[in-house]
Amino acid sequence: MRAIAVKRGENKPSLVEKPRPSPGPGEALVRTLRVGVDGTDHEVISGGHGDYPEGEDHLVLGHEAVGVVEDPNGTGFERGDVVVPTVRRAPNGENEYFERGEPDMAPSGEYHERGIVGAHGFMAEYFTSPEEYLVRIPDSLASLGFLIEPLSISEKAVELAYASRSSFTWEPESTIVLGNGSLGLLTVALLREDFDRLYCLGRRERPDPTIEIIEELGATYVNSRKTPVDELADVYEPMHFVYEATGYAKHAFESVDALAPNGVAALLGVPGPWEFEVDGGSLHRELVLHNKALVGSVNSHVKHFEAATGTLAELPPWFVDSLVTGVHGLDDFEAAFVDDDTTIKTAVQFSEHEER
Amino acid sequence: MRAIAVKRGENKPSLVEKPRPSPGPGEALVRTLRVGVDGTDHEVISGGHGDYPEGEDHLVLGHEAVGVVEDPNGTGFERGDVVVPTVRRAPNGENEYFERGEPDMAPSGEYHERGIVGAHGFMAEYFTSPEEYLVRIPDSLASLGFLIEPLSISEKAVELAYASRSSFTWEPESTIVLGNGSLGLLTVALLREDFDRLYCLGRRERPDPTIEIIEELGATYVNSRKTPVDELADVYEPMHFVYEATGYAKHAFESVDALAPNGVAALLGVPGPWEFEVDGGSLHRELVLHNKALVGSVNSHVKHFEAATGTLAELPPWFVDSLVTGVHGLDDFEAAFVDDDTTIKTAVQFSEHEER
Repeated sequence: MRAIAVKRGENKPSLVEKPRPSPGPGEALVRTLRVGVDGTDHEVISGGHGDYPEGEDHLVLGHEAVGVVEDPNGTGFERGDVVVPTVRRAPNGENEYFERGEPDMAPSGEYHERGIVGAHGFMAEYFTSPEEYLVRIPDSLASLGFLIEPLSISEKAVELAYASRSSFTWEPESTIVLGNGSLGLLTVALLREDFDRLYCLGRRERPDPTIEIIEELGATYVNSRKTPVDELADVYEPMHFVYEATGYAKHAFESVDALAPNGVAALLGVPGPWEFEVDGGSLHRELVLHNKALVGSVNSHVKHFEAATGTLAELPPWFVDSLVTGVHGLDDFEAAFVDDDTTIKTAVQFSEHEER
Repeated sequence: MRAIAVKRGENKPSLVEKPRPSPGPGEALVRTLRVGVDGTDHEVISGGHGDYPEGEDHLVLGHEAVGVVEDPNGTGFERGDVVVPTVRRAPNGENEYFERGEPDMAPSGEYHERGIVGAHGFMAEYFTSPEEYLVRIPDSLASLGFLIEPLSISEKAVELAYASRSSFTWEPESTIVLGNGSLGLLTVALLREDFDRLYCLGRRERPDPTIEIIEELGATYVNSRKTPVDELADVYEPMHFVYEATGYAKHAFESVDALAPNGVAALLGVPGPWEFEVDGGSLHRELVLHNKALVGSVNSHVKHFEAATGTLAELPPWFVDSLVTGVHGLDDFEAAFVDDDTTIKTAVQFSEHEER
């Protein structure tokens, strides 16, 4: 079968030929429909994040997949079920985090991430997965199921953030998503029902398709070149919830000033080392005197995939049509990895979904 | 009646004569037993924190009080009930935070703090308080009731910290309290039942009475001059919970490195502006990849006072005997404000509690 991989020593995706995998006990064989491309894939390709499976000279890419069960192999699935796989797998048998269904809480070294670190991804015509890491979704979502994994990341971050405010009465009204990439836009769409006032911050100038989507969603676009994060509260309003999806470390710290009293910022970006000066005294004081919180969040588990499935079903069709700027076949897979100002979200298509 | 106040333009506490207050509708008159002294009082006295009541030339000090109801004045209390007052009051009638019993979540400007900002404190022979801000405690705790307010501060911070970890399975085993002042020691005592391994960090050298208390509580003393906060994980162990009570802003940021995966740091210190360099990229990355959280916490409400009352009742007698290094009468009140290496916790005694 054909797969898309990055080879050791290379910084680009290649089409490779691999044997079709055979499902082991408790595993199903899945025929891949589509696999999304995101910023993490670009970091993996450039060598900035992730690692090859042990002893392998390549890493099959892809962690945002949707497929169809080809061989249930004794699992509870039926042939033809549309499924989305979760990303983390236990490296050496189980560990406590996987056993209790919370692989997203496993520390470094206690997980592989398919398509990212230590395990092949889903950008292949077929993949296998243990039953417990496959989430059944409605057939009607087959074409967009590759958006469930990124949505699940936000479902988890929002869950963590709300939990951090659960010991008191918290009725948030204003929120800003930092970052207008595909994850940022999906998150604005996710949050639009829960907040009276939404903002999304980016570095783009008009005209820009992401700005159009933001405004169509009823949110206000904030140009970070004109309004830095630490001026948001003064120029717009204090934010009850900040969702950081830029990986720009200064934003994480400046979020403290952007927050309303009792607000929380969920941090999701993954920057590298970067030393800079902060007014740490004032940030510390502000965190304390106004009961503010910063909550880091990574990955997601089955429950978040299930929530994301419900969210995806409710997204307006115009939104996903605008968001998904390209779905490319294997003959044209390189186009899915182009990242320019007209690209928002792309996917590679491995096979067609046939109605049952 | 006599009261202890700081006068405008002065940086020391003075004995002043004031009329005994009359309880208004819904208020009780309380005869003060004891009022504790803490770091906030020293900051108020030095002018570093807080503010005078509007139009007044002095501020009666004291926010850690215990007293006896002298005149119930139609409230649900009986004469002789031992009570502890909460600290925050609504400045102009009610506001939403007070209405729902969460004055600790009110932002700046929407609260006064008795003895700290905008309202006279409890260091007077009598004080009045609305019924809803008086917490009834057992008679047996009358002599130590001034420890309930500081304990309530930690009850709230711990509650917020645990809430932030409530969306997943969190079974913390190790904790460190940063700061070996009276609040730090009370917090080590509070946490001793919930954690297998406790640490407390300070700057003192042996022999020192606080180090003796820390070790008697079963905790390990960490000298911050030898082991900085960002080396704790390597030298001792990663901490599931960090409680910061130093107000030293670098500690707040270094806590991220001290935390175990999925850990949380509660921040309670109130530093002033202070610019310094941090590796903000690595801190941000670590918060995200290991689901860590920083949670600021200030003040407390009735529920926390009630929890603190239960905690106080369970503290070992040797501990409170060692912690409270001086209880001074009005003739000798200046001694309660001395802050040297032999002082841990002091209180001013305004009257004796008589057994009913």
